[in-house]
Amino acid sequence: MKKTLIIILALFSLNTIIAQQSELPARTKAASTNIVGSDYPRIDDAGKVYFKVKIDGAESVKVSLDNTVLTKDSDGFWTGTTNPMSPGFYCYALKVNGVDMPDPLSETFWDAGHIFSCIDIPESNNNFYDIKDVPHGDVRSVWYKAKSTGEMRHAYIYTPPFYEKNTKSRYPVLYLLHGMNQDRRAWSQQGRANFILDNLIAEGKAKPMIIVMEDGGIAGISKNNKQHFWDAFCKTIISDVIPMVDSEYRTLTDREHRAIAGLSLGGAQTYQISQDNLDKFAYIGVFSAAPFGFSGIQSAYKGLLNKPDEFAKLVKVFFISQGSIEGDGAGRKIHLDLEKAGVKHIYYESPGTAHVFQTWRRSLKEFAPLLFK
Amino acid sequence: MKKTLIIILALFSLNTIIAQQSELPARTKAASTNIVGSDYPRIDDAGKVYFKVKIDGAESVKVSLDNTVLTKDSDGFWTGTTNPMSPGFYCYALKVNGVDMPDPLSETFWDAGHIFSCIDIPESNNNFYDIKDVPHGDVRSVWYKAKSTGEMRHAYIYTPPFYEKNTKSRYPVLYLLHGMNQDRRAWSQQGRANFILDNLIAEGKAKPMIIVMEDGGIAGISKNNKQHFWDAFCKTIISDVIPMVDSEYRTLTDREHRAIAGLSLGGAQTYQISQDNLDKFAYIGVFSAAPFGFSGIQSAYKGLLNKPDEFAKLVKVFFISQGSIEGDGAGRKIHLDLEKAGVKHIYYESPGTAHVFQTWRRSLKEFAPLLFK
Repeated sequence: MKKTLIIILALFSLNTIIAQQSELPARTKAASTNIVGSDYPRIDDAGKVYFKVKIDGAESVKVSLDNTVLTKDSDGFWTGTTNPMSPGFYCYALKVNGVDMPDPLSETFWDAGHIFSCIDIPESNNNFYDIKDVPHGDVRSVWYKAKSTGEMRHAYIYTPPFYEKNTKSRYPVLYLLHGMNQDRRAWSQQGRANFILDNLIAEGKAKPMIIVMEDGGIAGISKNNKQHFWDAFCKTIISDVIPMVDSEYRTLTDREHRAIAGLSLGGAQTYQISQDNLDKFAYIGVFSAAPFGFSGIQSAYKGLLNKPDEFAKLVKVFFISQGSIEGDGAGRKIHLDLEKAGVKHIYYESPGTAHVFQTWRRSLKEFAPLLFK
Repeated sequence: MKKTLIIILALFSLNTIIAQQSELPARTKAASTNIVGSDYPRIDDAGKVYFKVKIDGAESVKVSLDNTVLTKDSDGFWTGTTNPMSPGFYCYALKVNGVDMPDPLSETFWDAGHIFSCIDIPESNNNFYDIKDVPHGDVRSVWYKAKSTGEMRHAYIYTPPFYEKNTKSRYPVLYLLHGMNQDRRAWSQQGRANFILDNLIAEGKAKPMIIVMEDGGIAGISKNNKQHFWDAFCKTIISDVIPMVDSEYRTLTDREHRAIAGLSLGGAQTYQISQDNLDKFAYIGVFSAAPFGFSGIQSAYKGLLNKPDEFAKLVKVFFISQGSIEGDGAGRKIHLDLEKAGVKHIYYESPGTAHVFQTWRRSLKEFAPLLFK
């Protein structure tokens, strides 16, 4: 095997963009979101991010992350360092010669209606969403025909560890909805929902469950993409998604074994879908949602919030969360209203986080252990 | 539900990048590789690609696809059209103000060691790799610990339609290797291997099989990523990947039910892995590979090519392919050598294609029906 030749070919293709330096800054690690083989961007223990990138034709480079201006070193690399960043998942762009573009050294993600570079600043050396040496579930890319509309749909479906081995077992299902201008990919790629569940299940804190992540709409605003709108999704989840999942997977199909939750737009959809279909869901989670879909204590849930005992009997867990530095409107106000009305619910505030995935990862970590108990 | 408000929010986020025009060019379709909701890029029946994109701060925009220069229209959109393009999957960049960047209107793919925008020019209105109304297998994102090295590895694994239903059935396995500076994603995302198999299986042309797509190395040239090198992969596929697959999936584990194939670098790896492990593979496919790993008729396969009868008894299918407009060195020369030596094999040339995914999609379409018969 002509190893030398192969290495030369590999270098030929990659060395234009990957920094090949002997000295890396002390106590830093390559970001987990880097393209394979790239030493930069790097992150230190304080959460500072170190950039070092070569970009042909660049005359100025600025990073939207912490508004960091990069400067060109004598080797032609653009370098710069952010201030310490709070832990979490950040999407960012490079502004090169005045134009926004992804960082060629980072993987890209679909978020907020754009293809973005993103970076994950760890909370610690042992995050609840890390890829650990525990049994892992799979995330399946699933194509199927929606019976009610005839369209081909695309879901990501998490099956828990040992799903393939325990072919006699049936499992509860969590329908987990993304936010505006995200899609089926967001909860696993940005949210790391599969790793969060792998770790909770390994610790015995959450029951093994299936998680269904679908395309919840609103992203497609083209007139040719009407099926992506909100209302269409709220119908299709009932008429197409749930029947497909219950037909193709070994699910427990009663309402006591079906949960729905979502972030932001997906939380608003969760209000709407759950109040119209309490016969199908006994567990409800709403993360950082504006109260679209929630018309207030008097009329939401068809008036059932005025009968707290009846509501509590039907809804095993009513979970509302937001980041502590979001406004009151992202959950806190509804929590206070529910409290005043004596409606049983669980409220969680993620300390020090805003309308970002770190809030939603933590919300899922708090919510999942409450399910199907 | 406050639909108007939601639509306004959606527009707010997306309208900066998506063209909202009433008139679209006649007989064109939005590319399948576009971000959701984007009408551009568009493709017409002749294979011309129409670009229309707004980019803040742009003073010049050129597309590497067919070296197309875009011009700014009175609404501030950059527009331009390629000449007719041959069918296939193209990665391309925009050069904006002299700097290469992805197209904000296209999804990105990991190929050739870069994050690229790509576009799929259809062969026809009914491609063998289209998403059709047939039963679909799943592509699973699988994390597991490699026992021999202790590293966490990531595979994409295709399970055929009805795999979940037929829990008594066991399946043959194709190990399908990507090219240089690609990874586990390439065969499904660029190659559409899952849709090719879904369609072949639906037509009764291929047996239902599991396809394992792993990270075959060479991409990581950083000194911290040694496990990504070629030699490491050729070992780990035997010591870790196959044992994991045979333990976690319902496979047929004898050599008559195991195939290996790869494109380019993955084809060269296929020579090396198969000749060192003929006890494990009875089917071999090499698509567009330079003869690294193949030391010639005299010494390759431990001299077994000098005994054509013995080789033919062991290797049920020895398949070699390349694009007709690749050089002789991508398969044709080995084919001629094998023919001269009387070694039974199948040779396929993809008409009019080069060292590109259209060659490899067609190769898989030719190869898969020959397997496990």
